[in-house]
Amino acid sequence: MSSRQQSLGLARLVDSVGGEDGTPRYRRVRDALTTLIETGEMRGGDMLPSSRVLADGLGLSRNTVNRAYRELVAEGFVEAIDRVGYVVNSGLGSSSGDVVDWVADPALPPLDWKGRLDGLQVDSEDVTKPADWRSYPYPFVVGPGPESFPTGAWTRAMRTALRKEHRGPSLHNLVDRDDPLLVEHIRKTILPPRGIAADRSEILVTLGSQHGIHLIAEALLGPGSRVGVEEPGYPDARDTFVRQGAQTVPIPVDDQGINVPGRMRGLDMLFVTPGRQFPTNVTMSIGRRRRILSEAARNGVVIVEDDYESEYCYSHQPPPALKALDSTTGVVYVGSFSKFLAPGLRLGFVVSDARLIDCLRRLRHNMLRHPPGIIQRTTALMIEAGDYGRVVRRHRRVLKSKWRTLTDSLSELFPWAVRPTDGGMSVWVEGPPELNAADLAVRARSRGVVIERGDPCFLSDPRPTNFFQLGFAAIEFDAIRPGIERLATLINEEASR
Amino acid sequence: MSSRQQSLGLARLVDSVGGEDGTPRYRRVRDALTTLIETGEMRGGDMLPSSRVLADGLGLSRNTVNRAYRELVAEGFVEAIDRVGYVVNSGLGSSSGDVVDWVADPALPPLDWKGRLDGLQVDSEDVTKPADWRSYPYPFVVGPGPESFPTGAWTRAMRTALRKEHRGPSLHNLVDRDDPLLVEHIRKTILPPRGIAADRSEILVTLGSQHGIHLIAEALLGPGSRVGVEEPGYPDARDTFVRQGAQTVPIPVDDQGINVPGRMRGLDMLFVTPGRQFPTNVTMSIGRRRRILSEAARNGVVIVEDDYESEYCYSHQPPPALKALDSTTGVVYVGSFSKFLAPGLRLGFVVSDARLIDCLRRLRHNMLRHPPGIIQRTTALMIEAGDYGRVVRRHRRVLKSKWRTLTDSLSELFPWAVRPTDGGMSVWVEGPPELNAADLAVRARSRGVVIERGDPCFLSDPRPTNFFQLGFAAIEFDAIRPGIERLATLINEEASR
Repeated sequence: MSSRQQSLGLARLVDSVGGEDGTPRYRRVRDALTTLIETGEMRGGDMLPSSRVLADGLGLSRNTVNRAYRELVAEGFVEAIDRVGYVVNSGLGSSSGDVVDWVADPALPPLDWKGRLDGLQVDSEDVTKPADWRSYPYPFVVGPGPESFPTGAWTRAMRTALRKEHRGPSLHNLVDRDDPLLVEHIRKTILPPRGIAADRSEILVTLGSQHGIHLIAEALLGPGSRVGVEEPGYPDARDTFVRQGAQTVPIPVDDQGINVPGRMRGLDMLFVTPGRQFPTNVTMSIGRRRRILSEAARNGVVIVEDDYESEYCYSHQPPPALKALDSTTGVVYVGSFSKFLAPGLRLGFVVSDARLIDCLRRLRHNMLRHPPGIIQRTTALMIEAGDYGRVVRRHRRVLKSKWRTLTDSLSELFPWAVRPTDGGMSVWVEGPPELNAADLAVRARSRGVVIERGDPCFLSDPRPTNFFQLGFAAIEFDAIRPGIERLATLINEEASR
Repeated sequence: MSSRQQSLGLARLVDSVGGEDGTPRYRRVRDALTTLIETGEMRGGDMLPSSRVLADGLGLSRNTVNRAYRELVAEGFVEAIDRVGYVVNSGLGSSSGDVVDWVADPALPPLDWKGRLDGLQVDSEDVTKPADWRSYPYPFVVGPGPESFPTGAWTRAMRTALRKEHRGPSLHNLVDRDDPLLVEHIRKTILPPRGIAADRSEILVTLGSQHGIHLIAEALLGPGSRVGVEEPGYPDARDTFVRQGAQTVPIPVDDQGINVPGRMRGLDMLFVTPGRQFPTNVTMSIGRRRRILSEAARNGVVIVEDDYESEYCYSHQPPPALKALDSTTGVVYVGSFSKFLAPGLRLGFVVSDARLIDCLRRLRHNMLRHPPGIIQRTTALMIEAGDYGRVVRRHRRVLKSKWRTLTDSLSELFPWAVRPTDGGMSVWVEGPPELNAADLAVRARSRGVVIERGDPCFLSDPRPTNFFQLGFAAIEFDAIRPGIERLATLINEEASR
């Protein structure tokens, strides 16, 4: 290892260490040095001043400088060489211009990424809310707010999850398995209220419900497959089916849910959200459920039931899941913890015939092994502690009062009749046929109101433009009525022009 | 809502509530009731006794019973009906035999899952360690032990991650984005010691390195693609390439790493582990690195560099990553936090040209949105607090002493010469050609020693049977020497037969 004289004056080095700003002193020394290395002002082989010299120059203790140096060594920026001292690592590549052998060869032709990637088509959902929606005073966006997260219960459960007896499932490579405790609580606590009885072998934990839908599509669909989807419906599921080469067939939704009877022939799969139809929030009637099950069985159609939110019914108990009513094993049930906990935690599950679950498990293993053990075990311990019921109850109370305020405000202030819903976290609004909801959404934002345009939920061409969603979970309770007032004023102004 | 007389005697109900066992009382009441509902002893429409009557029967307070009832209502097992009382939810499906309309129709034909799934082939890795390896006294398994997890630092960072200013990135749906703080720390702290300078747009966070490899394969490979892989090499990566329809081409590994020069023509991709070749632990020489980069660029081959573990070098600094030496954008770098934190946390990253990262991001969005925000933010805060350097340093110290003990024990006690390695967490052992390491592994287990057979790492047919891995990270320090003694004794006994 060759080392040359320090090329940087001590004064420059001292200058580059920032003043007191709350950061620990040794960190400031470390950060200054990595910045100098990163910018090339210090290069591979450069010697650092001795800790005594630098400590004197900075007016800091030697301990502080030594701690920074030790960290730099641990991180690989610097080498400690016996009888020489601390030297910038010559192995830092691009910044080590003096080590000729290691410099990149600029004569090599660059890779043609554009050509490589041209054939690859990945659809993504249309964006219907601005990224900075939290900065608006009246954000009627779809989806839960982070304020509802049960921080105390989560933190307690997480601490327990790291105790000796839980460390294995929390931290080990589980290969292709799931946390057995979470599977048990899904089986015993989450599924029974939905009417579903399932064996351990019939449950797979996923990174949220989108992951479940993706795995199911990957296992069961291919070019030539035909999937019936709700119209309007969930755009991301459609994208997933199309990405597997399948054709999607739009089937209209009415007051009882997807109106599929008589339209099942020739389908391989039917994707439905019977508990709370997305985006209309209609709950599928029990009669429609039985009819769909029977036609699906007779036509050999796999039903994918996305029960992304079944906890929040405000006026009556929800009917049992399709999965609960099914005797044919033909229903694949997709559940989510996004609404119980938080969407950013990415946790959901699939319940299905054990043979399909086994396939999905192998696909998942090859894709990413398993959902993080620590999130699985922490969630399981929260459920075990009784927090599932407590949290759902609390959310339901808060959401119900928001829902009532929104519903009342709409019927009192809104120029258009809005069909009431009895659950969920949003309202689906149909404006007059000439409405362009995308334009309305832009103008509403200029008055501080965020609404979500509905056209991406449609598959038909041209898409209807006169629908939008009003979410009421993320917005503050006190902002709901004034927000609807502002939106109504805007609509009335435009109508009178 | 019809409700009929309670069909279950109070005495039976009282019986079914278990005695004191440390579980909170209201939980025991709740659990007894859900079990009765689940087993069909209580059915939809059955009335529960009033809380006063049940409390008297159980000798518990009314508050306790009321709490259990409230939880059952929140969970949907039970409905609270005004002026009537608590009634088992008729919507519980299969157990509500009295609600004829809702019962599954047994006449429907079952779905033919076998037929559906027959075409689907998903390879999984051969299992090389017993699931219960932790119960053996001398587990020389490959991979880190959970004991190394920095629980205190993690818990502190997690608490911070749930504070107001961090809740958004921790808990929100990030759509297709990553936690910007983690990306920043990957850029500023993790990559520079490896010689890599990267822009934000060139980094994608993944669910561990397997997820990165899967996304890259999905984006860049298809039927007809040819991928060069190390022989011996990482079986899971091979499986991923084959699953995309690609053909894998084995390329031998020598003392300097994969011996690819002259063998690059006709390949679309080359998968390599230059920092620590899996499973041999060879570090690729700098000359070989430059040669491979140059031949790959001239042949238009994408290099996937799996740098799954570069922190643990014991005798010298590692050379810079291939990615650091590359001027052609043709290297796709895959990193992992499994060794810094724990494999069960599933966190890794990909560094590449921004156009590829954008594609991978869209694939990931469709697959599962994003890795859990709370794990991303907690890890970022740990790195920010300086724990990355501290933890890596501590691990390196522990691992180095284990490595030295293993190396010394092997050279002192072992009948076969083992080529020394200077880093990593395992040793690759070549026995005499006639050795069947799979058989040896079975016999070693009967003496309490777990080793991992090496044949799944080979692609050639027939696979060599005389290699195995000795991992030294998960085993206790004090067990290393006696474990090697036992293994050596077994080998010597067998040789003298």
